[in-house]
Amino acid sequence: MTHPLRLGIAGLGTVGIGVVKIVRQKAALLEARTGRPIEITAVSARTRRKDRGVNLDGYAWEDDPVKLAQREDVDVYVELMGGSNGPAKASIEAAIAAGKDVVTANKALLALHGQALAESAEAVGRVIRFEAAVAGGIPVVKALTEGLAGNEITRVMGVMNGTCNYILTRMESAGLSYEEVFKEASDLGYLEADPTLDVGGIDAGHKLALLASIAFGTKVDFEAVRLEGIERITSEDIAAAADMDYKIKLLGVAQMTGRGLVQRMTPCLVPDSSPLGQLQNATNMVVIEGDSVGQIVLRGAGAGEGPTASAVMADVLDIARGIRLSTFGQPAASLKPAKVAEVSVPAPYYLRLKLQDKPGALAKVAKVLGENGISIDRMRQYGHADTTAPVLIVTHKTDRDALDNALEEFAKTGVLEAEPVAIRIETV
Amino acid sequence: MTHPLRLGIAGLGTVGIGVVKIVRQKAALLEARTGRPIEITAVSARTRRKDRGVNLDGYAWEDDPVKLAQREDVDVYVELMGGSNGPAKASIEAAIAAGKDVVTANKALLALHGQALAESAEAVGRVIRFEAAVAGGIPVVKALTEGLAGNEITRVMGVMNGTCNYILTRMESAGLSYEEVFKEASDLGYLEADPTLDVGGIDAGHKLALLASIAFGTKVDFEAVRLEGIERITSEDIAAAADMDYKIKLLGVAQMTGRGLVQRMTPCLVPDSSPLGQLQNATNMVVIEGDSVGQIVLRGAGAGEGPTASAVMADVLDIARGIRLSTFGQPAASLKPAKVAEVSVPAPYYLRLKLQDKPGALAKVAKVLGENGISIDRMRQYGHADTTAPVLIVTHKTDRDALDNALEEFAKTGVLEAEPVAIRIETV
Repeated sequence: MTHPLRLGIAGLGTVGIGVVKIVRQKAALLEARTGRPIEITAVSARTRRKDRGVNLDGYAWEDDPVKLAQREDVDVYVELMGGSNGPAKASIEAAIAAGKDVVTANKALLALHGQALAESAEAVGRVIRFEAAVAGGIPVVKALTEGLAGNEITRVMGVMNGTCNYILTRMESAGLSYEEVFKEASDLGYLEADPTLDVGGIDAGHKLALLASIAFGTKVDFEAVRLEGIERITSEDIAAAADMDYKIKLLGVAQMTGRGLVQRMTPCLVPDSSPLGQLQNATNMVVIEGDSVGQIVLRGAGAGEGPTASAVMADVLDIARGIRLSTFGQPAASLKPAKVAEVSVPAPYYLRLKLQDKPGALAKVAKVLGENGISIDRMRQYGHADTTAPVLIVTHKTDRDALDNALEEFAKTGVLEAEPVAIRIETV
Repeated sequence: MTHPLRLGIAGLGTVGIGVVKIVRQKAALLEARTGRPIEITAVSARTRRKDRGVNLDGYAWEDDPVKLAQREDVDVYVELMGGSNGPAKASIEAAIAAGKDVVTANKALLALHGQALAESAEAVGRVIRFEAAVAGGIPVVKALTEGLAGNEITRVMGVMNGTCNYILTRMESAGLSYEEVFKEASDLGYLEADPTLDVGGIDAGHKLALLASIAFGTKVDFEAVRLEGIERITSEDIAAAADMDYKIKLLGVAQMTGRGLVQRMTPCLVPDSSPLGQLQNATNMVVIEGDSVGQIVLRGAGAGEGPTASAVMADVLDIARGIRLSTFGQPAASLKPAKVAEVSVPAPYYLRLKLQDKPGALAKVAKVLGENGISIDRMRQYGHADTTAPVLIVTHKTDRDALDNALEEFAKTGVLEAEPVAIRIETV
């Protein structure tokens, strides 16, 4: 094939412009690798008049991304506008109806409508690819879909929101509070317009739901992701965790268990000597575990112009090379509804308690744990100046139900000076 | 396509049996993912009568792998015998001539004959795939060829021989000598029949040469890899490096410079806080740097039945899915001869010297460095009981030539009690 592959790009923000730059600046390299020229024929964005630092004169302009998606001279519709509905969805639907392949970085859209979009694309023999939607430049969708396709995947984990990891590592390194670092991140422009998407774990939860679908052959089920953000993590917890050789991460875990699929995006403790524990700043990491391969760790930039554009181009170049895969690794129509596990996998937990500094206080707490079948792995009581004794406990593996019971019963003992903090320790 | 993809497997050692197990035990999963059944029709190995723990009765047997490769009922010839010549080469040539696709884990063969084999395969529209040849279960060939295809690759680095990394980390953790750990590794069966392949860096050098070809669009040039093994690394060096916050790794580096392609597989110091520095035991790691994506790190098991079979299956499943790529990412005929860089990239170096404990000894050494334009970043002299003063120096970036000059001139100063040790510090 020597006819060019023609792209129509909707969305000329950071990533869109990054893609334009790669196509322009590395034309010869891309053609050498794929055997055909890659061209941009048309673009679309909210505002035409704006200096984006690259010359767009050679490309047709469409105000309406739906029109762009339908153009005769477009082979691949590249959707980089974002948004879980509205123009992104309408234009991708239009592209499929018009027989175009689709490349998108839109995790929210796919987490909510991926199944329907994939089914309609596959019904007409078109592909939807989304490497850039998960963990930026890390080729994790490809690794999971293709590179590890000989494995029954047992668990997928990841730190997939760079902003949250930046906040947590900065809280530790600078000894600042969550509120202080949140403000810093906001001033630096690291946060989404709606910061809950980041710090509430929603953005990372979208990504996890997409990986889970590929890993387990199940329909994307974002609703079933248990979400918990980092808003309640204190610098006290970070310091205490560090003292017990752990780091706190906003960690996504998708795991197939005998009782169904577990999907969580929650703060977890991980050993500080593990690759996840050592992950600093805004870098992303995905850990994939398969029955044959064991554990594979992938690390790289999770956002930014270059990394995200690199991932978009990987999908474009696959299409140029004639690689045609089902959106989620097997035909969408064959994906099964995920049976949602009602019970989480037992794990050790970290507990931080503020006890009254009175004889018998610790005994009461220990009794509650014992009665709920929770045994203690490590315990530390710190020196203190006031009448409150800070106590850290690392439990052995326990059911979340037993732990929740214990937390309730703690309140009845009357020896706690504050709400107890309990954070899961993920075995990595 | 619903007709099965039929495999002929030559070589029934650990990896071959691993592949047989995956095909048998995960038939439904593989078919769901690729849309067609994967079957084994025929196998070959040196000895037929041997209990391999799996039932091979359903497969035709060939004593001669060439015959296996030519069988009518084989679509993909899977070469897992190893060896850089002989039956492996002859059978792959036969497979190509008979119009079969080829999957192999044979790094030595491809490092020496990959260009010719790829050209002949591509001339008849067949593919040769080799994910399992590099870094075991880590899908690094795919990441580099496809996932990062939008990048101009600037550097590829890696710890790609698990045995060497096991030896080096074990020397550190147990405080043992190279000879002691070498014997341990030998007793544990970790070493190749010819251990020079491992500890001399040859095996890892083969892998590096393959990655360099994909990364830079150049013909595989194993002869140009500067090889240096780990045989001369002492526990003294490991301890001294640790004291300066470095680890010693057998590190492969392929880098395109203004003066040509650099390929090295040599002991290097890397910061102990870097992902490479933290790599323990037999685990492998590949670091890929691209102009758009920045740095991507891939980590996983570099050998063993499951991980290597996982990589073989990734190639098989790609073929089943109709993914057809050039062996080295672009047509073999279009790969250019690598211009070999005569000069290595400047780097800081670690020097360990044993000086006579006399006034002026250190001054003489420092003078030699200064005269060669080498400036000192950090220096440590240790307390000592005898008349020899151990001195560690970390230099600023310097040319290797200048360093070699300095090392020569050190001898003339008459203050050195032993050969100086110089190890490159790779900026990672």
